Amino acid sequence: MVETNKTALLVGAGDAIGAAVARRFAAGGYAVCIARRDPAKSSALVEELTRAGSKVHAFGVDARRENEVQELCERVEQNVGPIEVCLFNAGSNVKKSLHETSDKLFFKAWELACFAGFLVGREATRHMLRHGRGTMLFTGATASVRGGSGFAAFASAKFGLRAVAQAMARELGPQNVHVAHLLIDAGVDSPAIHQRMKAASGIDASEIPPDSLTRTSSIAEAYWYVHQQSRDGWSHELDLRPSVEKW
Amino acid sequence: MVETNKTALLVGAGDAIGAAVARRFAAGGYAVCIARRDPAKSSALVEELTRAGSKVHAFGVDARRENEVQELCERVEQNVGPIEVCLFNAGSNVKKSLHETSDKLFFKAWELACFAGFLVGREATRHMLRHGRGTMLFTGATASVRGGSGFAAFASAKFGLRAVAQAMARELGPQNVHVAHLLIDAGVDSPAIHQRMKAASGIDASEIPPDSLTRTSSIAEAYWYVHQQSRDGWSHELDLRPSVEKW
Amino acid sequence: MVETNKTALLVGAGDAIGAAVARRFAAGGYAVCIARRDPAKSSALVEELTRAGSKVHAFGVDARRENEVQELCERVEQNVGPIEVCLFNAGSNVKKSLHETSDKLFFKAWELACFAGFLVGREATRHMLRHGRGTMLFTGATASVRGGSGFAAFASAKFGLRAVAQAMARELGPQNVHVAHLLIDAGVDSPAIHQRMKAASGIDASEIPPDSLTRTSSIAEAYWYVHQQSRDGWSHELDLRPSVEKW
Amino acid sequence: MVETNKTALLVGAGDAIGAAVARRFAAGGYAVCIARRDPAKSSALVEELTRAGSKVHAFGVDARRENEVQELCERVEQNVGPIEVCLFNAGSNVKKSLHETSDKLFFKAWELACFAGFLVGREATRHMLRHGRGTMLFTGATASVRGGSGFAAFASAKFGLRAVAQAMARELGPQNVHVAHLLIDAGVDSPAIHQRMKAASGIDASEIPPDSLTRTSSIAEAYWYVHQQSRDGWSHELDLRPSVEKW
Repeated sequence: MVETNKTALLVGAGDAIGAAVARRFAAGGYAVCIARRDPAKSSALVEELTRAGSKVHAFGVDARRENEVQELCERVEQNVGPIEVCLFNAGSNVKKSLHETSDKLFFKAWELACFAGFLVGREATRHMLRHGRGTMLFTGATASVRGGSGFAAFASAKFGLRAVAQAMARELGPQNVHVAHLLIDAGVDSPAIHQRMKAASGIDASEIPPDSLTRTSSIAEAYWYVHQQSRDGWSHELDLRPSVEKW
Repeated sequence: MVETNKTALLVGAGDAIGAAVARRFAAGGYAVCIARRDPAKSSALVEELTRAGSKVHAFGVDARRENEVQELCERVEQNVGPIEVCLFNAGSNVKKSLHETSDKLFFKAWELACFAGFLVGREATRHMLRHGRGTMLFTGATASVRGGSGFAAFASAKFGLRAVAQAMARELGPQNVHVAHLLIDAGVDSPAIHQRMKAASGIDASEIPPDSLTRTSSIAEAYWYVHQQSRDGWSHELDLRPSVEKW
Repeated sequence: MVETNKTALLVGAGDAIGAAVARRFAAGGYAVCIARRDPAKSSALVEELTRAGSKVHAFGVDARRENEVQELCERVEQNVGPIEVCLFNAGSNVKKSLHETSDKLFFKAWELACFAGFLVGREATRHMLRHGRGTMLFTGATASVRGGSGFAAFASAKFGLRAVAQAMARELGPQNVHVAHLLIDAGVDSPAIHQRMKAASGIDASEIPPDSLTRTSSIAEAYWYVHQQSRDGWSHELDLRPSVEKW
Repeated sequence: MVETNKTALLVGAGDAIGAAVARRFAAGGYAVCIARRDPAKSSALVEELTRAGSKVHAFGVDARRENEVQELCERVEQNVGPIEVCLFNAGSNVKKSLHETSDKLFFKAWELACFAGFLVGREATRHMLRHGRGTMLFTGATASVRGGSGFAAFASAKFGLRAVAQAMARELGPQNVHVAHLLIDAGVDSPAIHQRMKAASGIDASEIPPDSLTRTSSIAEAYWYVHQQSRDGWSHELDLRPSVEKW
């Protein structure tokens, strides 16, 4: 039972990517801490993984509040185990023409996708530095490297998060904390996207061409691989897209 | 006197880059509106340019406040002339290790270098779209494309601003508004940097190798060139550095 | 007559970009040396510029042959004047599916767009280093930064040329030789493209939307601007595209 | 024994990366074909892997010759099995100042690192398309994305190879051929680098800080991971460097 308390903390973990990463790290022997605004929404996942024999904990956190993020990390450290890997996965895609982008919308996109990422990255790695190791993972998107028309708010937030990931990687790498950024250049296969496609073009989920959306399990596998890398060869950034994607 | 009211609005225009751009556009026949937090600080420049026969106006603005930015643009449009070119030049470089970067510092770096840029860009181009043309200029830095160790806050803000510039360029280009981003990969020759070099390494201004810092007049010339480009061939991004720079 | 022998050498200078750059530098007081495979093709341009009072010389060169490039540079230096600026503009766009790209095609694309660029850059800067200054200019394209489907040969050559430009810039900048790379992300307004558009989609030149192709004079102006930059603030790379371009 | 004839073809496979990838794919159940200029040099590796129960074959090939590459692929297909994965790993790092870079050196660097990569990629994927699937892997380096001083020849070749990889990925992805490019931003732990370090600075292999060079087994693991990705989520590019690397 030597590895019992290896702990993964997933922040901004919803039903899509977050849940898949939870399953992957649970399968890999990690105690998994799932943190989102409303922890009640994690209950089905907690039940599923607990039934499968894993240690899972749901936490409520507003990742945009410094004190909540600090408290979250401390509770995890004290009650579950040393944070060995942390995923920051919050941020919600929004497309608006420039002159319909209110200052409030711009602020909120940044606060959730970038500022919260800075807070979570800073606080989780504080503990990792104490432990002498750890892996900090960030979810990126096409908008992390391309400011497309209509994406002033979202791309600005995602560019900003990517800068945080780079600065952290360069500063903390030599101290044995691995910081990586996953560029998901894809539609992510999830109920949310099925609904959007239905609404936008009447396409039923059953009609979506197979493999044209990236499965959350493939994303989880990428994070798992990155976390397994040994210290002599770390990836900082990798992209991920369906074989049929135009790019 | 056909071009009397061609107007350039410079926001975040201090004594270095801002003053040089003011001189360049005044020399090119523009009425120049210099906006910064404290307009009193622009009085020497206003006097200098007025004496030289240019139309110059100083405005006070906190570019991080939507209503102040809106009001600034409207006052310029009503009292000076149609905004044909606007420069956003605010933002102040800061280097701190990740765990010494407070949430306040991170927010402030973003608010000034990125959020204000979004506000100024959105409001200035609102008028440009009405006029059917215009040029929106953004000042970038090395940190716009590289998240170096110690630059989580500043690089995050500058990456974010670059995304804003890209999204604006792609959306507004077809409507004849030219959006450009200048990557200043250089120390800028200014009293501020002389003081920092003196403090950091005892180097006197007179000992700084010639041409090892980029002169503000060279930066102003780059903005002037970009603004002169005709619609069939616009630059969105160009870099600028001293010949002796390592990069 | 102090500047009589300021000399510009344009290699791979055809009737489009090359001719426009010749006109621009001639107008700026340069003796212009136009080099291409068949110098007879330059005669109309030579006549035009000579009539306008400029010094112009046509040379024949196969820029893929080291000895021809060396001889060209030496003849220019001896008979015209010290090479102050050199443009390398050869390379011809080609699109082929991967499995229709013969080894011969791949080699030829590289030999003309990349290898010749290396030779011209190396030989022209050899003289510039002797003079203590100079500007070396390279024409890039969308394919310099994006390997699109069907562009294995052309993009590989243009990526390769961009690497040459970067390596030269980093090595020679501190020795006062300015190396710049122009990313022309555009269709270039020229008889050649008019013919292609006519053939491909029946569009007559008169029907092409104004400003939707980049004029060669705009490209020439960009090179002229870059060459005018003072040593404290050099651009290495800038892009250029029509306002209506999707990118 | 269903997967007996799954075949991996490694071209430019020397004693460092090539051997490690051979070991990894052999361990994963692949018949491994090791191709290099002199097949005799593969005999120790063939013996090692054969003894371990793997199917291994050594081939001689000059990857810069179209007919040799074609013949190699055909012999592998006929005598071993359908090529499911192919690695192109040739290319040798060279640093020379621009004016010491002969046309011969420039050509040779390109011929080996870029032209041969094009040939191998084109020929291997010709068979993959016939099979309806496959993975084509390319080894990149720091010089694939940065033209440093002294690297005109090597960076030009590696930039060119990266363009080939991108063009192939975009064209062949929709046909179920996965093309990936690994950016090894690292010194690779190998006898060759130990000798260079000894020669350059007298450092003995035993004094090299642990984990400061990337192990070939870590590189092999990256290739293995990429090959395992399912079609809905493919990486095209990932970087790899030691935790202590400056970048």
